[in-house]
Amino acid sequence: MLDCYSELIEEKLKEVLTLKGAEYDILLEAMNYSASAGGKRIRPKLLIEFMRVSGGNPEYALNFAVALEMIHTYSLIHDDLPCMDNDDMRRGKPSCHKAFGESTALLAGDALLTESFSLAAKSDNIPTDRIVRALAQLSDLAGVNGMIGGQVIDLKYENDKAPLEVVLELYRLKTGALLKAAATIGCILAGADDVKIEKAGIIAEKIGLAFQIRDDILDIIGDEKTLGKPIGSDSESNKSTYVSIVGIEQAQADVENLTNEAIELLADFDNSDNLISFAKSMVLRQN
Amino acid sequence: MLDCYSELIEEKLKEVLTLKGAEYDILLEAMNYSASAGGKRIRPKLLIEFMRVSGGNPEYALNFAVALEMIHTYSLIHDDLPCMDNDDMRRGKPSCHKAFGESTALLAGDALLTESFSLAAKSDNIPTDRIVRALAQLSDLAGVNGMIGGQVIDLKYENDKAPLEVVLELYRLKTGALLKAAATIGCILAGADDVKIEKAGIIAEKIGLAFQIRDDILDIIGDEKTLGKPIGSDSESNKSTYVSIVGIEQAQADVENLTNEAIELLADFDNSDNLISFAKSMVLRQN
Repeated sequence: MLDCYSELIEEKLKEVLTLKGAEYDILLEAMNYSASAGGKRIRPKLLIEFMRVSGGNPEYALNFAVALEMIHTYSLIHDDLPCMDNDDMRRGKPSCHKAFGESTALLAGDALLTESFSLAAKSDNIPTDRIVRALAQLSDLAGVNGMIGGQVIDLKYENDKAPLEVVLELYRLKTGALLKAAATIGCILAGADDVKIEKAGIIAEKIGLAFQIRDDILDIIGDEKTLGKPIGSDSESNKSTYVSIVGIEQAQADVENLTNEAIELLADFDNSDNLISFAKSMVLRQN
Repeated sequence: MLDCYSELIEEKLKEVLTLKGAEYDILLEAMNYSASAGGKRIRPKLLIEFMRVSGGNPEYALNFAVALEMIHTYSLIHDDLPCMDNDDMRRGKPSCHKAFGESTALLAGDALLTESFSLAAKSDNIPTDRIVRALAQLSDLAGVNGMIGGQVIDLKYENDKAPLEVVLELYRLKTGALLKAAATIGCILAGADDVKIEKAGIIAEKIGLAFQIRDDILDIIGDEKTLGKPIGSDSESNKSTYVSIVGIEQAQADVENLTNEAIELLADFDNSDNLISFAKSMVLRQN
């Protein structure tokens, strides 16, 4: 879905992560390795499309879109490290620290995060007041009250069964925050009003929750090869997931309900057909 | 030196790192622990003073100043991790991962970096075009072609004697880059012209190099208690330092020359007495 933006995104990522000098070869190689590991680019595509449906020029959103994907990539690299989830594989390939060593993986994550703000700040065709607001939104949703807050909750309940409300808060932060960043920043860059920006955030939170619950379902029923990680990797551990608490049927029904709620709210945006198709694709996705 | 800004900086840091909710307590505690570990606050003080000598209101530079200190703090936390320098002690206390565990230390570093951009973006009294330019400068000098580039060189020569030119490049990036950020961002926020901004960068690079060479000297002659880390920790390893290559007398002479060059350039800034005293204090500092 939203594949019309794929080429733009891949080209920009490559441009940003071009090798700059012999000293940094290994760092940029590690950054490229993880950034080009075949992600679905959901966040940058959403950001660009929300820019478009809010009346902005999609191409002008490209720096922020790729910055968001870089932040997502850094979070995966650091999440896979031995002191975190200790995952050897990511998207069917050795994880960054397995391929490049822990110290390079740590720095590659740090560098992706740092360079993402540099790239976003250089959004030349966007008025500076919108850039500043979008940068604040990006860092807030990637920070303590956003994605990193989710990782803290994840660590806290590593060996404990989390109750449903904690699982929902975890999903809202760990997955939802960057999707909310995508939707709201697209609107901010286009100069949308506050009501639209807030609505976009609510839509993204619903899609994000549906996405994460579908992930839990795929973790149980999914095909190992399609998903690129061992089946049941969450359920083997003691971790609570939405599905382990409410059951698979209720979970799939909730994915559908959340998606329908998001689609209803999307009616307030012009030309939102692509976003509606995108939301619908969440419901039955296989990977 | 520049102690007039100490209270402002400490108050702002405390405000930013205030505990926000039970889930994040441990994370914010770790961030606070490292951020309040008794650093000299050289970078934020320099930034604020360059704002002042460029005609700006020092208080308006506070968000960027504290953001820069947060980036410095994150770099120390990640540098101390087992996969990097594996340092158990920092400024006379257990390092962050020794006190809080590796996963919390990793996330505390990530969070300090992320939140620094949020704080800087919220510099309410600064025109947005200057904020955007300063944010680009901050991320560039903290990134691949700045501080992180220095860490990559450091890792590369972990077990090899680096030649002098590599040692100088390492110092320029690992220490110099954030000092250059301090000086240039102070000027940018005040609306200084490009010539002034460039000159401030050169001054900071000279002070930074003097600072780092003086660090090497202290590492050999310093008193363990004063410095808060084991004496000779660099010379015990196989690492090249400026002092190990050119000798201690030449090194101290170079510290003085670099400082004098910086002081000469400072003559072009009005009211630069404090900065000149600050530069002079580098020459004979004991910690």
